[in-house]
Amino acid sequence: MDIKALASAHPDHWARAACIRTLTLDAVAAANSGHSGMPMGMADVATVLYDKHLSFDASNPDWPNRDRFILSAGHGSMLLYSLLHLTGYEDMTLEQIKDFRQLGAITAGHPEYGHAKGIETTTGPLGQGIANAVGFAMAEEHLRAVWGKKIIDHYTYCIAGDGCLMEGISQEALALAGHQELSRLIVLWDDNGITIDGKVSMSDRTDQKARFAASGWDVFSCDGHDPEDIDRALTEAKASPRPAMIACKTHIAIGSSAQDTAKGHGALTDPEVVANTKAAYGWEHAPFEIPAELKQWWEEVGRRGAEDRKAWEERFNALSAGKQSEFTRTFAGEMPKKLTATIKALKKQLSEEQPKVATRKASQMALEVINTIVPETLGGSADLTGSNLTHTGGLGIFSPEDRKGRHIHYGIREHAMAAAMNGMILHGGIKPYGGTFFTFTDYARPSMRLSALMEIAPVYVMTHDSIGVGEDGPTHQPVEHLAMLRATPNMNVFRPADAVETAEAWELALTANKTPSTLALSRQGLPTVRTEHKTKNLTAQGAYVLADAEGKRQAILMATGSEVAIAMEARDLLQAEGIGTRVVSMPCWELFEQQDESYRKRVLPGGPVRVAVEAAADFGWDRWLFSERGKRDKGGFVGMTGFGASAPAGDLYKHFGITAEGVAEKVKSLL
Amino acid sequence: MDIKALASAHPDHWARAACIRTLTLDAVAAANSGHSGMPMGMADVATVLYDKHLSFDASNPDWPNRDRFILSAGHGSMLLYSLLHLTGYEDMTLEQIKDFRQLGAITAGHPEYGHAKGIETTTGPLGQGIANAVGFAMAEEHLRAVWGKKIIDHYTYCIAGDGCLMEGISQEALALAGHQELSRLIVLWDDNGITIDGKVSMSDRTDQKARFAASGWDVFSCDGHDPEDIDRALTEAKASPRPAMIACKTHIAIGSSAQDTAKGHGALTDPEVVANTKAAYGWEHAPFEIPAELKQWWEEVGRRGAEDRKAWEERFNALSAGKQSEFTRTFAGEMPKKLTATIKALKKQLSEEQPKVATRKASQMALEVINTIVPETLGGSADLTGSNLTHTGGLGIFSPEDRKGRHIHYGIREHAMAAAMNGMILHGGIKPYGGTFFTFTDYARPSMRLSALMEIAPVYVMTHDSIGVGEDGPTHQPVEHLAMLRATPNMNVFRPADAVETAEAWELALTANKTPSTLALSRQGLPTVRTEHKTKNLTAQGAYVLADAEGKRQAILMATGSEVAIAMEARDLLQAEGIGTRVVSMPCWELFEQQDESYRKRVLPGGPVRVAVEAAADFGWDRWLFSERGKRDKGGFVGMTGFGASAPAGDLYKHFGITAEGVAEKVKSLL
Repeated sequence: MDIKALASAHPDHWARAACIRTLTLDAVAAANSGHSGMPMGMADVATVLYDKHLSFDASNPDWPNRDRFILSAGHGSMLLYSLLHLTGYEDMTLEQIKDFRQLGAITAGHPEYGHAKGIETTTGPLGQGIANAVGFAMAEEHLRAVWGKKIIDHYTYCIAGDGCLMEGISQEALALAGHQELSRLIVLWDDNGITIDGKVSMSDRTDQKARFAASGWDVFSCDGHDPEDIDRALTEAKASPRPAMIACKTHIAIGSSAQDTAKGHGALTDPEVVANTKAAYGWEHAPFEIPAELKQWWEEVGRRGAEDRKAWEERFNALSAGKQSEFTRTFAGEMPKKLTATIKALKKQLSEEQPKVATRKASQMALEVINTIVPETLGGSADLTGSNLTHTGGLGIFSPEDRKGRHIHYGIREHAMAAAMNGMILHGGIKPYGGTFFTFTDYARPSMRLSALMEIAPVYVMTHDSIGVGEDGPTHQPVEHLAMLRATPNMNVFRPADAVETAEAWELALTANKTPSTLALSRQGLPTVRTEHKTKNLTAQGAYVLADAEGKRQAILMATGSEVAIAMEARDLLQAEGIGTRVVSMPCWELFEQQDESYRKRVLPGGPVRVAVEAAADFGWDRWLFSERGKRDKGGFVGMTGFGASAPAGDLYKHFGITAEGVAEKVKSLL
Repeated sequence: MDIKALASAHPDHWARAACIRTLTLDAVAAANSGHSGMPMGMADVATVLYDKHLSFDASNPDWPNRDRFILSAGHGSMLLYSLLHLTGYEDMTLEQIKDFRQLGAITAGHPEYGHAKGIETTTGPLGQGIANAVGFAMAEEHLRAVWGKKIIDHYTYCIAGDGCLMEGISQEALALAGHQELSRLIVLWDDNGITIDGKVSMSDRTDQKARFAASGWDVFSCDGHDPEDIDRALTEAKASPRPAMIACKTHIAIGSSAQDTAKGHGALTDPEVVANTKAAYGWEHAPFEIPAELKQWWEEVGRRGAEDRKAWEERFNALSAGKQSEFTRTFAGEMPKKLTATIKALKKQLSEEQPKVATRKASQMALEVINTIVPETLGGSADLTGSNLTHTGGLGIFSPEDRKGRHIHYGIREHAMAAAMNGMILHGGIKPYGGTFFTFTDYARPSMRLSALMEIAPVYVMTHDSIGVGEDGPTHQPVEHLAMLRATPNMNVFRPADAVETAEAWELALTANKTPSTLALSRQGLPTVRTEHKTKNLTAQGAYVLADAEGKRQAILMATGSEVAIAMEARDLLQAEGIGTRVVSMPCWELFEQQDESYRKRVLPGGPVRVAVEAAADFGWDRWLFSERGKRDKGGFVGMTGFGASAPAGDLYKHFGITAEGVAEKVKSLL
């Protein structure tokens, strides 16, 4: 690599890009950990992108019509932090850069959404960013159609590395993007030929350009160290009527002794290596020092979009007051005021009509009224629309032909669906929900975890939530998935018992702004257990007394979802024998945990025998059976002890002993 | 579709394939559920494959050198069941076909490994089978090199549908196969253009052939209803020096009124539809009736490989007795006898030398001795070899140039790694292990669940198992993952405290034959806590008293992994204050649960205060704190309550209060 030739070919550009490279070297050295090579390698591309293409205003980081920049290769976080600092984002001070990877700093090892302005999404788990970017681009297409291009009209740029492209999620994401013709999506592939284990050629020989082209992308190439070539490729990509991938040929850890090696992927902390690299760059400044004229140039870049932003604000202010407030509301993630009344009316109707429907059907019934009054919902399914029942009347199908369509055929791509939903909600202006079978939570897990970690609130509509699946058998019957999600911080897991609880759960899922929700919904029909209308949202308390004991309270049955009706039947059996039995419906453990002690004690007082009923693993139930005023020898569980089986659902419930009789027997054995 | 023209063009073939189609129609109708369209569409391909290409012997289903046939599109299970029944697999009786999808039948909704001979793997979750097939093919390549082609020399065939190819795992799998030049792998893509939601074109426009070619596959096409064309394509694919994909153009639910529609994907149960379809086929037999001459022809097919099998047995019998028994041992999944002594010797050495090493390093130390005496291990890492420490001296790298190599660079493909490990172990003759960061359990989950469900025992080497990860931050810090795996049936989750427990865990993971193991291993160095050598494998008991109370036992500290040393320090603090404190190390909950009551009671007697320490979510700990003779007001947890953060590991432990002082305080607050 002839660094001097590079530097002398474009000396101004070289010095500007060197700011990123040296800040990276200094921050990684100070932290004694991190990833130097990627920011060093992609500094030229990023400099040209920010200088000439990215529409943004560092003084207004939340401007809704800004271009979005997503660093899918999140380990290269110093690239992003450097750009934010250099262009003048207020919160990204030099002190934060110096505190890279330290407790309390906004400059985490990987970019964490919410830590700093300009971090559009949390990345690090590879492949997530590129799939988020697809969601951003879908959101932009939809909102451009809804609001007009005077209000929404921007690009989504994404830098992805070899790791991102090897992860399976990248295939789901790029195929979805190609199908949807997301022309405003531009992926810059850092084609440096190196992964942690060594050369990419040790584990891959994929022609990435051919692969993207196979799914309907336009593909471009550039020399990732030649600013003119980068500019040319970006200009061409922006003009493309399809999503565009630019293969940027780069040298990882350029200019260092670790250039083009796996060592260069990691932390270059050796003082000599750092010094030599800076010398190779012709950089003669102290650590963390950016010469004033260079900082000034970068801050100009940070102000470049200010006029566009002001022009946008004028256009926005020209909208009617109603439209403005609607835009502001949806971008704030707030629900329309009438949601509460609408859900109440639905609940009243359901308590009166008492339908026996599957909760997946009840979910659709709720969505029918919700989608009418909440225009920002964007639903979908991973090729199980008719099973998940996520589609409602008149939504239309989101497609190149109908950008206003509000139901998305995600294809058999649970992972990309979840990641795209994250991207949509991060974009703003959209409340996404998407469905698959509950057991396929497994496929979507990495993105679901990121919803929780980022404190964003998409809604996962997970139907077919137990052995109630029936004949499809154990691969399709979730057993451990309730526990998996309940163990996940900041995830509300709803398992509603009937149509009323389902409506309540939807209200809570939509109004949650910082916590994602999973709705675990039955395949099979369930009777209405909430036969008496209550205006209060009882599900909001997480658990509540559905039916109290008659006579002396000897037993408390705790159940969720499809097993609440079984608990109610068991109560009938027990009461008939004079055993006073309370039934507690527990649609959301997390919300119950948040109730105060006095409420929890009212619902689960000490004393009676407690039996929990859930067609799932018992993992986690000990909390409610034993530690919440329960008694060690007076608690029992009726549910699954292993995987399910293939048979009609009714047969399975009997086979596994999850029946009213089984519950009653369990109670009696503990009395 | 001119069915008559098809039938008259190849009348014999047509009648044979019609056996599959009509058995499918009848079984699905009887079950009133299932998937008719795929077996109907792929019956011609399957007939040609079994008749002319697949090397197998229905009377010896476990013949190690048989070709493997994997139905990745597992919902089309009746295709496989029909083939097994028709060709004369003893256990696949007509009664089983008639009991399709009923409780206790071996004919589950999706093919379940272990239910019937000839089911090579459990499929149904889409994309798994194709990735399993890559593992099968890798196993074959390796074993062919090890044993010579007289002993192992076969093909792996896989039928995959559009769903399999849309799932991200398919990209990981095909790129891995292309890189590894797995020339004996042939994927038959059921190119019917239909998914559950409708036409594939509603969600995808990928040119699958171009996509496979981009990763180094040879691609072929055929008319999936023309037996000659199918035969030609298979013949060409077999001759290819690369993995081969054959796009089989088919009509889903061919000949029925639902042909070429999403309706045809599901269950055709309407008697009129069934009758009309059979009429279109020219099929005039009673339900489930296969005319004798057709059954005879199929049984001939089932015997076609008998001579090859016998010839193979002769070659096998010509091996030395030692080689024969080694082959038999490895295919039975049994460990060499000397493993126990080897582990004991290592433990003795470790207890004496008392190294302070990360358990990931301890794992490598164990693997160094294991890999020397267990030749059937095949290790690997998803591009974190130097972090997971799964490589040991002299293994070599598995590649087209070195098929005897025993370490696999899986690339950044956690999902395909896990699925390929499943495939390898199902193939037989190999004990696979593979590593990634513990947090990326999320990416591998669907395949890890299938290990557990299939009762096969690969070893997941999951390093960087807590906030001990440090600066990489919360995306890389598992919090809920121990609970997720503990909640999964039939999964042993080991979190060893030091090098000795790590060696013990490895012994258990290797000797388990029906239960997969996850080793959750620390990034950070840990002191040896097992300083006194015991020949007994204490980890086999799941939990044990590591240090007992001195004086009156007032407290029991329970901990796993890196927190055991913290518990030991806390014990010192408490004992110094005269508070008698026992420390229980709990490296494997599942094994502890399997101990008898008297042992569990000895370890966790009632009475003392109990505090659990684990740098993870507390979800699940209530079992040991409260229900196992614990007392409601005398239990506490020291660990995580939310996600982690980015900072040096030591800072994080202090920040989250997971310290000896914190544990001691917690105990005192409960006394």
